[in-house]
Amino acid sequence: MTNFSISERLNVISPKIKEFLLKEIYPLEKSLLSQPFKEVAKLLDSKREIVKKMGWWAPQMPVELGGQGFSLVELAHLSEILGASPLGHYAFNCQAPDSGNMELLLAHASSLQKEKFLNPLVKGDSRSCFSMTEPQFAGSDPTQMATTAVLDNDHYVINGHKWFTSSADGADFAVVMAITDAQNSNPYQRASLFIVPTDTEGFELVRNISVMGEKGDDYISHAEIRYNNCRIPVEYLIGREGSGFTLAQERLGPGRIHHCMRWIGICERAFDLMCKRAASRYVKGNTLLGNMQSVQNWIAECRVEINASRLLVLDTAHKMDRLGAKAAREEISAIKFYVAGVLQKVLDRAIQTHGALGVTDDIILSFWYRHERGARIYDGPDEVHKSVLAKGILKKYLSV
Amino acid sequence: MTNFSISERLNVISPKIKEFLLKEIYPLEKSLLSQPFKEVAKLLDSKREIVKKMGWWAPQMPVELGGQGFSLVELAHLSEILGASPLGHYAFNCQAPDSGNMELLLAHASSLQKEKFLNPLVKGDSRSCFSMTEPQFAGSDPTQMATTAVLDNDHYVINGHKWFTSSADGADFAVVMAITDAQNSNPYQRASLFIVPTDTEGFELVRNISVMGEKGDDYISHAEIRYNNCRIPVEYLIGREGSGFTLAQERLGPGRIHHCMRWIGICERAFDLMCKRAASRYVKGNTLLGNMQSVQNWIAECRVEINASRLLVLDTAHKMDRLGAKAAREEISAIKFYVAGVLQKVLDRAIQTHGALGVTDDIILSFWYRHERGARIYDGPDEVHKSVLAKGILKKYLSV
Amino acid sequence: MTNFSISERLNVISPKIKEFLLKEIYPLEKSLLSQPFKEVAKLLDSKREIVKKMGWWAPQMPVELGGQGFSLVELAHLSEILGASPLGHYAFNCQAPDSGNMELLLAHASSLQKEKFLNPLVKGDSRSCFSMTEPQFAGSDPTQMATTAVLDNDHYVINGHKWFTSSADGADFAVVMAITDAQNSNPYQRASLFIVPTDTEGFELVRNISVMGEKGDDYISHAEIRYNNCRIPVEYLIGREGSGFTLAQERLGPGRIHHCMRWIGICERAFDLMCKRAASRYVKGNTLLGNMQSVQNWIAECRVEINASRLLVLDTAHKMDRLGAKAAREEISAIKFYVAGVLQKVLDRAIQTHGALGVTDDIILSFWYRHERGARIYDGPDEVHKSVLAKGILKKYLSV
Amino acid sequence: MTNFSISERLNVISPKIKEFLLKEIYPLEKSLLSQPFKEVAKLLDSKREIVKKMGWWAPQMPVELGGQGFSLVELAHLSEILGASPLGHYAFNCQAPDSGNMELLLAHASSLQKEKFLNPLVKGDSRSCFSMTEPQFAGSDPTQMATTAVLDNDHYVINGHKWFTSSADGADFAVVMAITDAQNSNPYQRASLFIVPTDTEGFELVRNISVMGEKGDDYISHAEIRYNNCRIPVEYLIGREGSGFTLAQERLGPGRIHHCMRWIGICERAFDLMCKRAASRYVKGNTLLGNMQSVQNWIAECRVEINASRLLVLDTAHKMDRLGAKAAREEISAIKFYVAGVLQKVLDRAIQTHGALGVTDDIILSFWYRHERGARIYDGPDEVHKSVLAKGILKKYLSV
Repeated sequence: MTNFSISERLNVISPKIKEFLLKEIYPLEKSLLSQPFKEVAKLLDSKREIVKKMGWWAPQMPVELGGQGFSLVELAHLSEILGASPLGHYAFNCQAPDSGNMELLLAHASSLQKEKFLNPLVKGDSRSCFSMTEPQFAGSDPTQMATTAVLDNDHYVINGHKWFTSSADGADFAVVMAITDAQNSNPYQRASLFIVPTDTEGFELVRNISVMGEKGDDYISHAEIRYNNCRIPVEYLIGREGSGFTLAQERLGPGRIHHCMRWIGICERAFDLMCKRAASRYVKGNTLLGNMQSVQNWIAECRVEINASRLLVLDTAHKMDRLGAKAAREEISAIKFYVAGVLQKVLDRAIQTHGALGVTDDIILSFWYRHERGARIYDGPDEVHKSVLAKGILKKYLSV
Repeated sequence: MTNFSISERLNVISPKIKEFLLKEIYPLEKSLLSQPFKEVAKLLDSKREIVKKMGWWAPQMPVELGGQGFSLVELAHLSEILGASPLGHYAFNCQAPDSGNMELLLAHASSLQKEKFLNPLVKGDSRSCFSMTEPQFAGSDPTQMATTAVLDNDHYVINGHKWFTSSADGADFAVVMAITDAQNSNPYQRASLFIVPTDTEGFELVRNISVMGEKGDDYISHAEIRYNNCRIPVEYLIGREGSGFTLAQERLGPGRIHHCMRWIGICERAFDLMCKRAASRYVKGNTLLGNMQSVQNWIAECRVEINASRLLVLDTAHKMDRLGAKAAREEISAIKFYVAGVLQKVLDRAIQTHGALGVTDDIILSFWYRHERGARIYDGPDEVHKSVLAKGILKKYLSV
Repeated sequence: MTNFSISERLNVISPKIKEFLLKEIYPLEKSLLSQPFKEVAKLLDSKREIVKKMGWWAPQMPVELGGQGFSLVELAHLSEILGASPLGHYAFNCQAPDSGNMELLLAHASSLQKEKFLNPLVKGDSRSCFSMTEPQFAGSDPTQMATTAVLDNDHYVINGHKWFTSSADGADFAVVMAITDAQNSNPYQRASLFIVPTDTEGFELVRNISVMGEKGDDYISHAEIRYNNCRIPVEYLIGREGSGFTLAQERLGPGRIHHCMRWIGICERAFDLMCKRAASRYVKGNTLLGNMQSVQNWIAECRVEINASRLLVLDTAHKMDRLGAKAAREEISAIKFYVAGVLQKVLDRAIQTHGALGVTDDIILSFWYRHERGARIYDGPDEVHKSVLAKGILKKYLSV
Repeated sequence: MTNFSISERLNVISPKIKEFLLKEIYPLEKSLLSQPFKEVAKLLDSKREIVKKMGWWAPQMPVELGGQGFSLVELAHLSEILGASPLGHYAFNCQAPDSGNMELLLAHASSLQKEKFLNPLVKGDSRSCFSMTEPQFAGSDPTQMATTAVLDNDHYVINGHKWFTSSADGADFAVVMAITDAQNSNPYQRASLFIVPTDTEGFELVRNISVMGEKGDDYISHAEIRYNNCRIPVEYLIGREGSGFTLAQERLGPGRIHHCMRWIGICERAFDLMCKRAASRYVKGNTLLGNMQSVQNWIAECRVEINASRLLVLDTAHKMDRLGAKAAREEISAIKFYVAGVLQKVLDRAIQTHGALGVTDDIILSFWYRHERGARIYDGPDEVHKSVLAKGILKKYLSV
């Protein structure tokens, strides 16, 4: 535990970014709530140009590639600012799942892959998705997977059935996990990662899965996909055969902390809305809502739990900056379930504070209430992360 | 506390009704999740014919009017069965808000009003809505209301702005609360209830409010309405001038217990889905989900809290059957917040048990997760009902 | 679910018993909080005479033996009244563990055992204890037990180490569970129950275990006991060899519901104290404590959860009266963990409402806070009962 | 938010202090649980000599006075180590209420007062207490107080009734708050603080209040005190007349963070005991307790909440080190209720993990369960601190 104060450069640009969001991005949320994302994306394109011009673009990528080379601690601070709007990360080109794919390709892609797939991503000229989860198997079990990739001369032939491939609709390519060595005695070496362009023959986007009443489209969607004899050149294998689980894990660790950072941004926005409402709405007996002790309790409890979330996430980011994602495995599991829980609680109370208005799409809260119920499920449900953390702790006691 | 066993006749018809729901109603839920309600309503019409034929129609209405004359305790048992589907009550013509309007008109309408408005409702030939809440004021404060009704010869002229008038889209008439005597020293005698046909000039359905991502339509909708100089004949005043709050309260008491009954039906369906999932899904390490202690905890806690909900609701219904709604005011507040809380918890856990599938519209859970977040808000938020109950209890201590 | 109203006779005597408690028993609580129980017992003796004279004695025992022949539903109502004081059940001679031992002996003792051990118990002339749990093993596992009883001609020789043998200090005999057939392939047939008079040579009361800062004495104590070659006549075997677990289970089922009934009595007393405090104490700003919304929330939530507890317990008692304890196994597990949880919550909130006074022994709350933390542990911890309930439910799903 | 890593010197001495506690202090806990504190104090005296010799004595006091001059952040780290035993702080002479009194006297005492009262305290030659709370009034209301100090020539005459004056038994002097100017229009300027030696005529220690079943004695006690015409020289007024509330507030701010630091120490000890138990105890079916998912959930949730507590406390300490206690008023309220809540939860779960053993005094958990139920009450109940925090936040919204 140590220094995780805001860096010099972030201190300078944070207020500007906040103002940018307030003026340029928040106003687009109305469109998000009433139009297909495809339409919103057009509006966002001009905002992305501003972001590039301001020198804020792709903060998680190295400067050489056109990014800002932020540390994880810096990203944590920034991500909280951006998370205040569902459109923030997209505007800065550090949105999931592209962000995780960029990091994966940066670390493990061949030069051919980088040129063809990474560069356009970083520039914001293409979109991507990550295709791992299968409807028949629990996502938390790496040893159960039915998708296969079979070598056929200089091609791999991929067959399988995936779902919850977020943002596949409109993506240019998918990173797909498939079994390449089903008999390997080490189940963690059975799978590999491949790049599959979405215009590959046999790539079938079955549907955008309707989630919480919304099919969504384009970037805001979760696809069910069938890979029907998709032939891709051997050059599209990422890393080496058998490294699929290792690379996916490497990608998911930081991915989880990215989610946590973003959730804190959501929490702060919801908290702000809650306080504004409490400070302006009168209830029965001409009492200001904020004078009701129940509302005060919510505000106090939310405040301290959001603060706790931030400190835990920064502490974890700091550890990852120093020692890498693997060393912080338990901490990542801890913040994953803790912050997801705080997020749900804060949203629930912010809605309750707004009464009937809270469940409407006249304000942004219900968007997150629906879209982030999954936070306690995706990238590992609470229960799995609690077990991971507890087992890690108990191991030290058992070995004594 | 006393006898609230299932009545003889319910014992006979319950299994039949359950089978009817399973065979005829559940299959329509797919349509509900993917089509406008207007389309679903067409499919439901033929089911309603079956219900009539079976002698189950309008169970809450007296036999003379074509109903079944059920007691509240009987309705509680039935409502739980119907609540298992979002379409159950509609199929039996005991859905809110029509059901409450029927009860109101039955008790207080003139013969002209009964003939013109009640009879078609009971027959299922028309639909109605209840227009009370205003966007500018807390619903729980009866003394704040801006809608007015001014007598002009043999007409009332109504002006006002309402919202969350559920099912207004496609309704034939609205029951509207408006101030008729703003200066009355007793704030509870300032308002009156009126019947306003929706084809009245000046009745403006501004929009169906988008709630949790869904505008909805027809029966499944919540309208914002402006009453712009709506002229209605004096004969459309319900009861006497100044009785608005009293009548609304009388309508809302049973309305709240109806909601509670229905929520238990939702809970049981969600619980059943949760158990089915737990008994069939395997997780990491080839463990049956139902063998995970967290899932067992959820099942056990949900089971006992649903049972508690049922007993509390039946106990309240029994008291209301004997002593009327007013005598059970505290009990009604108690079950309103308690059962709403259990509902939210059961739905949340049923979703968590399903993992990613739980947030999709491939199953029914997310429908309720979205639509019933309002349960802790509509008809009085938790906080108001807790205060009502506590103040009622403390009054006895203070008077000593 | 059905009729569980208060019986005619209870309706008549309930107010009298309440008055008796208020006048005769509550005043002795001061002594309980400041003196050894041995001293309190002397004061209680004269109260027990009144109870006998009033015809209230040993309500759970049949009339022929000098009891009142109450049904379980009747006992549930009575037990709630008595539970309002830690001395209530003792005054009526229906206190654990004697009450459970009486039921056990009534059902399974030989005539010799009845005459020698049961009759003095029912008369209140002797006390007893139940010696099952061992420090080395989890109480919830019937297959792990180290105490043995070996037949030696016409005696059994018992050796073992028990703890949490409540009320052993001053008891006249212990009912002891010991292994008689360690090799039996059915682990549930390995043990037997024996009557061991405490003056048997080798019966060593090692200590009264200090629990929550209190060693206690006499009836209010939990002993650690060693059975060192205790020789008892074969006639002191209860039932037949190998029936130990079955009989213990039969004893514990009703025992659990007895605890639940008593806990509701504690809840009601704590609730009453909380309301009195809320209705009389002023806090900062000269506000009545009961006007604080937090306190109102506590009162409302406690009220509904105590009501739920009562209904669940009565429903279970009713089922047991009709179908026996075995048929209600899941319900018993359900109320065991549910009511224990409500008890802890109600006590915690009642204490918080009293501020600093709440943790003192100037009032009775802290007595229960300490003594009933065990409620979630003894007779099976929450976690075991939740699993029992969930597994029972899931079994039906798995067999389909 | 910024650097709050462990300082160089603490890094060096921490392991030594931990070892000292383990070897020298933990073994005394048995005595604490079974003997009057007066006896334990004798054993502790020799340990205090070791602490002095090691250069660890009175860490919160300046070096000039014989202390170690620790910053708050350093104290937070140290206090967590010491808090692992109920005897830790006492052994280092940084125990409440003496520690707070030392800080008060250091900042505001006259040289006469320092020589006569502060120096012996710092040396460990005397003990003191702080006498503020009155049984008739809510402690959180500074405007309600009945104790008075009336000037009579060169003496003040103090009359009043206090309780929960911790550690008064055996103390050499009390710091007493009394009204000196009841009519002052500013209620915060009505009271003053006085030093009252306990051998002053009229100082009546009515009783050590029995708390959670324990009267306690000497340092471990909470006294009810009557000040009956206690005459003290004017030189024993601390600071100036009317400054009582200000000084008390100044004393209580850091006092609250000291409690929080200590609680984290308790949490870590309880957590360690819980893990040890989970890693060694077998339950039904020969399953290691730590393999039960419920226990894993508890371990994971406790771990993350203890970590959150520590980060929040350090962050607050850091702010106080930089900006003073007043600037951190809201943060202090936040950690006061948050950490107290975590403490209660961790203790409860550690007990539950131990089963019956958990409620016994064979281990230390039940000591804290009883003694720290007050944590959510003393120095301001949760509800007051939540309101303080919420009102502070809302003030910013209201002034906009």
